[in-house]
Amino acid sequence: SNMVKVAVVGGEGIGPEVTAQSRRVLDWFAAKRNVPMTLREAQYGLIPYLATGKVLPEDTAEAMDEADAILWGATGGPETTEVPAAARKAGSLLGLRRKYDLYANLRPIVASPALSASAPLKAEVLDGVDFVIIRELTSGIYFGEPRGIETLPDGQRRGFNTEQYTTNQIRRVARSAFELARTRRNKVCSVDKANVLETSVVWREEMIRLHKEEFSDVELTHLYVDNAAMQIVREPRQFDVMVTGNIFGDILSDCAAMASGSLGMLPSASLGPVDRFGRRKALYEPVHGSAPDIAGKGIANPLGSILSVAMLLRLTLNRPEDADLLEKAVQTALASGARTADIAEAGAKKLSSVQMGDAVLGAL
Amino acid sequence: SNMVKVAVVGGEGIGPEVTAQSRRVLDWFAAKRNVPMTLREAQYGLIPYLATGKVLPEDTAEAMDEADAILWGATGGPETTEVPAAARKAGSLLGLRRKYDLYANLRPIVASPALSASAPLKAEVLDGVDFVIIRELTSGIYFGEPRGIETLPDGQRRGFNTEQYTTNQIRRVARSAFELARTRRNKVCSVDKANVLETSVVWREEMIRLHKEEFSDVELTHLYVDNAAMQIVREPRQFDVMVTGNIFGDILSDCAAMASGSLGMLPSASLGPVDRFGRRKALYEPVHGSAPDIAGKGIANPLGSILSVAMLLRLTLNRPEDADLLEKAVQTALASGARTADIAEAGAKKLSSVQMGDAVLGAL
Ligand SMILES: CC(C)[C@H](C(=O)O)[C@@H](O)C(=O)O
Ligand SMILES: CC(C)[C@H](C(=O)O)[C@@H](O)C(=O)O
Repeated sequence: SNMVKVAVVGGEGIGPEVTAQSRRVLDWFAAKRNVPMTLREAQYGLIPYLATGKVLPEDTAEAMDEADAILWGATGGPETTEVPAAARKAGSLLGLRRKYDLYANLRPIVASPALSASAPLKAEVLDGVDFVIIRELTSGIYFGEPRGIETLPDGQRRGFNTEQYTTNQIRRVARSAFELARTRRNKVCSVDKANVLETSVVWREEMIRLHKEEFSDVELTHLYVDNAAMQIVREPRQFDVMVTGNIFGDILSDCAAMASGSLGMLPSASLGPVDRFGRRKALYEPVHGSAPDIAGKGIANPLGSILSVAMLLRLTLNRPEDADLLEKAVQTALASGARTADIAEAGAKKLSSVQMGDAVLGAL
Repeated sequence: SNMVKVAVVGGEGIGPEVTAQSRRVLDWFAAKRNVPMTLREAQYGLIPYLATGKVLPEDTAEAMDEADAILWGATGGPETTEVPAAARKAGSLLGLRRKYDLYANLRPIVASPALSASAPLKAEVLDGVDFVIIRELTSGIYFGEPRGIETLPDGQRRGFNTEQYTTNQIRRVARSAFELARTRRNKVCSVDKANVLETSVVWREEMIRLHKEEFSDVELTHLYVDNAAMQIVREPRQFDVMVTGNIFGDILSDCAAMASGSLGMLPSASLGPVDRFGRRKALYEPVHGSAPDIAGKGIANPLGSILSVAMLLRLTLNRPEDADLLEKAVQTALASGARTADIAEAGAKKLSSVQMGDAVLGAL
């Protein structure tokens, strides 16, 4: 069948609450816009662990394996003794990224004019910000070997990790960046620390090589990661597509969250390689985490998850008009004053997660 | 003698221009406040390389070796073929940090109310910001072995680096942070990525251990580095002393530069271990780099270098009143409207480096 399979996995903390709202949005697109998809919900985290001994039980693994797209909520929280570290690790988000080879993590940073009152950056700095960070997600220091903790002869302990990139790993994520730039303002900024790290020297050389060979029509610039962190705050408008390694992308995208107004607004897509049937596995999730401090209160901002559905519509379902429709509905809801607590100005009315879902559905 | 020996090394790019102004300030304190110091100027970079084949010639090495404090300008610039990489490396700033074991890099982030018009953050976010980032400077991924670039059997290239920390390395920089916090608002925030990196697990454990053993009167909190990058922009006022590893500190301090208003304003001190005579080698330098695009024009902001002199007065010379005097003179100059190009509002008069030096000396 040409139905696209979507696995919906709310996970832990505020994950299920925000995902419930994006699930409503998905249902709306299936019913009202005939988007050809089947949804399968599955559980992840403490609840299935208590029932099955696994944070990622068989049924969830199967739902994710067979899915074209996974709509993911959140995982993690304060260190808990309820799930032993080994069980956590066996089904971790890092493991899933690796299992499905989701190497290209796209994090769009778009400023919402409606939110400038609650943002730390000045309105004139936020105005017009619209860029995408592509973070390499399956290599670098997150996965490099050797890694571990050892005891030295003198009794000290030493922790060690390996940062590493091969040319093929760099090349494929560089390609994602150049291709995306061609659909936008045609600019790629590659971020590294080539003045200190050999890993970054290889990164930069391979960027330059691929650019020369296949993408010389795209403007390519380079920034050191420290300077990039500053430039993202100083003048975020200068960027179109930024591409970088795993740990740098982790840090820079949270830093950039403030250039969009709020972390709670940010969606992401993690894309795997294109297979021989032309399919490309993808995981969509809000950039925010499980926010255990507000979990269960029904007040989390579902817009990061809802905007992740827009990315799903655009990238997996190839329905750009529907993606635009949803993004506009979010802007309409915001423009009409809809605010969850995280983006509300002092004294403003604060909507619950469900009410924010209502506001977006109302605007559709 | 109890004269303190200061080596003044302007270096490259805008380094000599800004250092010329802080040299004037040093001379003022020697003459007018009887600060007991001897100054020795020395050259670094392309100019001595052309004369001697070394970026760091014998004479400069000797001046720095015998100095209690080094006032450093800047080094580096666009990749140049004029100095071969091997000669660069032989006298690099990283090598100096290592040679003198300058493990504790202090970067104060203090917002200047006078500069809020030209800052990207809102005045109400900047208001009252006053914290210090302590970056570990002689270990971590900057120096970890093994490192290199190799060719794989399939012809690919692979770059690799080692992130690593031993408990002793963590402990001594942690101690610097706790001790500094006791002289301030008594709060330390330690930044790591302990949810992913073993190096960070050891980092966090050792922080907790030392805190428990010797500094339980100080408030200790922990942030993941991605969250820290966001919090620095979202609400920088929350921090007092932040302590972190080499690469995280590099990124976070540039990110934090925007929480002070401008990179050009930021000073730093890099401190070595206390020796058996109670002396502690230190290198003072502005956080900004060599800025080759404006080098030689006489328009660079000397305040980062001048405020580094204030740190020298406070930390090496133990003259807190003189340090305060100088910091107040800088604020007075700013309050009276003195602006170099980097911190000037549109339409405002832009001072040269020399004129900014005049303004500070005038306020002293
Ligand atoms: C939870 C953590 C392992 C994760 C990461 O560092 O990748 C998160 O910060 C993210 O950015 O998705
Ligand atoms: C020039 C570079 C090697 C240096 C560093 O990364 O340490 C600089 O960015 C700094 O922060 O002092």
